[in-house]
Amino acid sequence: MLIVGERINTSRRLINDGVANRDAAYIQADVGSQIECGADVIDVNAGSRRNSEVADLQWLIEVIQKAFPLVRLSIDSSNPDSLKAVLDQVEHPPMLNSITGEKARFEATAPLLQVRECDIVALCIDDRGIPKSADQALENAGRLVSALERLGMQRERIYLDPVIQAVSANTNAALMVMETIARIRRDLEGVNVICGLSNISFGLPRRSLVNRAFLTLAMKAGLNAAILDPLDKKLMGTLRATAVLLNQDPWCQAYTAAFRTGRLEG
Amino acid sequence: MLIVGERINTSRRLINDGVANRDAAYIQADVGSQIECGADVIDVNAGSRRNSEVADLQWLIEVIQKAFPLVRLSIDSSNPDSLKAVLDQVEHPPMLNSITGEKARFEATAPLLQVRECDIVALCIDDRGIPKSADQALENAGRLVSALERLGMQRERIYLDPVIQAVSANTNAALMVMETIARIRRDLEGVNVICGLSNISFGLPRRSLVNRAFLTLAMKAGLNAAILDPLDKKLMGTLRATAVLLNQDPWCQAYTAAFRTGRLEG
Repeated sequence: MLIVGERINTSRRLINDGVANRDAAYIQADVGSQIECGADVIDVNAGSRRNSEVADLQWLIEVIQKAFPLVRLSIDSSNPDSLKAVLDQVEHPPMLNSITGEKARFEATAPLLQVRECDIVALCIDDRGIPKSADQALENAGRLVSALERLGMQRERIYLDPVIQAVSANTNAALMVMETIARIRRDLEGVNVICGLSNISFGLPRRSLVNRAFLTLAMKAGLNAAILDPLDKKLMGTLRATAVLLNQDPWCQAYTAAFRTGRLEG
Repeated sequence: MLIVGERINTSRRLINDGVANRDAAYIQADVGSQIECGADVIDVNAGSRRNSEVADLQWLIEVIQKAFPLVRLSIDSSNPDSLKAVLDQVEHPPMLNSITGEKARFEATAPLLQVRECDIVALCIDDRGIPKSADQALENAGRLVSALERLGMQRERIYLDPVIQAVSANTNAALMVMETIARIRRDLEGVNVICGLSNISFGLPRRSLVNRAFLTLAMKAGLNAAILDPLDKKLMGTLRATAVLLNQDPWCQAYTAAFRTGRLEG
C-alpha cells in the first residue's frame, strides 16, 4: 500500500499560513511527522493560492527537499502550466497529480510526461464528466492507460483514480467504486489504483467513520495507494488492521511495529 | 443485518455476579441497553457455570422475558441437554446456538429442532475439526444444510457460522472466511451467515481495531448476522457506516438515527 501524505495543501489553514509566512520550519516539521507516520510520498498542493501557486510550490519543494533529500514528492495541481513550471526542480522522479481523460487537459499535461520519468495520477473522467457507472469508468480507464502507454509510460507508473462520489447523494457510489477498482486491477494488469477517501462521506455526520470503513472495502477491492492524512491514527490503524486481514502484512509486522511506537489507535 | 447481543454470558464477570446473586434488575438493565442499542436477539449463555447451567438459564430466561415480553432469545450452550431443558420456557421462537456437523452433537441436538419452531446456529465443523480450507467449510456447510432440511427446517431459519480462526496464527484466516461466506451466500441460497468477530484478532494488540475492519470485510462478503456487543459504540458505528457503503441502509436512515441518538462514535 503506497501512502501519499495529503497534509501539505494550502486549503488547510495552518499550511496556508505557513506558506504565506514562508515558515520553513513549520512545513518541514509537518512533512517530518508524515514520513514518521508512514507516508511514502508527500503531496504538495498550493492550488488555493491561485495568484502565487507556482512561486509557492517552488518554495515548498525547496524547503521540503532541503530537509528531506530522499523524499518523494507528488506535485498536485489541476493546472498543467503549474506542474510544468516546477517539474525540473523536483529531485527524485515526482508523482504528478493529476491528468484526466478530458481532451484539453490531457493534451496540455501529456508533454510533461515525456520530459522526465515520473508517476502519474490519472482521474477516470473525460469530457462527459464523472462516470455514471463502473462500465463508463472502465472505458475511461482503458482509454487513459492506452494513451499513456502511447507516450511511453509503463503501467507501474500509472495510478488510476476511479473518482469518488458522495454516498449520501448516490447510495450506490461506494459499490460502484469497489467494482471499478476490482475491474481495473483485473483487466488492466500492472496499473495501480489510488484514491482520496473523504469525498465518499460528504454530507454525512461522523465522516471519518465512513471514510475508514470505505478504506477497508476499497483495499479489499484492490486499492493499492491512497492519498490521506498519515497523522490520522484511527485511519492509519484501520489501514494497518485491514492489511493484516488481507494477508498483505506478513507476520503482522507493520501492524505490531505501529502498535509498539504508539501509532495504532483502537 | 441481524444483531445478536452477546453480553448475557456468565464468562463476563459482572454478568456472572448478577446471576450468582440473582440480581434481576442488573440483568434486565443490561438487556434493556442492548435492545436500545440495536440488538434484535439477546444471546443467553451460562456455560461457564457448569454445575448450575440449566437453573441459571431458566432464571435468566424468566427475568428477561418478564421485563421484555417481546424479546427474541438465543439460547447458547454447547450442551444439547441444557438447550432441551429450557426450550419450552422460551416464549417466542428461540434461536438455538448451536449445532455442529459433529455426529454425536448433531444427533443429540436434532430432535430439539422438531419439538418446536426455532432458528439454528450451525457451526461449519465436523468430526475432522475446524475446516482447513474454504472448500472444506463449504462441504460442511452443504452437509449441515441438507441434514437440517431433512429435519424440515427452512433455509431462512438456518444461520451458518463459518468458524473463525486467529489471523495471527494463520495469515490467510480472514481471506478464507470471506471466501467461505461469499460462497455460502451464493451456493446455498436463502441460508444466513452469522459469526462472532473476536476470534479473528486473538493474539494481536488493539484487537477491537482488527475486529472492526473484519466486520466490514465480512459484511461485504455477505455476512448478514453477527454476535457482538451492541454497546460497543465503535463497533456499531463501523457496522452502521459499512451498511451505508454497501447500500443496505436506504437514505442513510439507520446511520443518521444512530448519530442523532449519540450512538455513533467517530
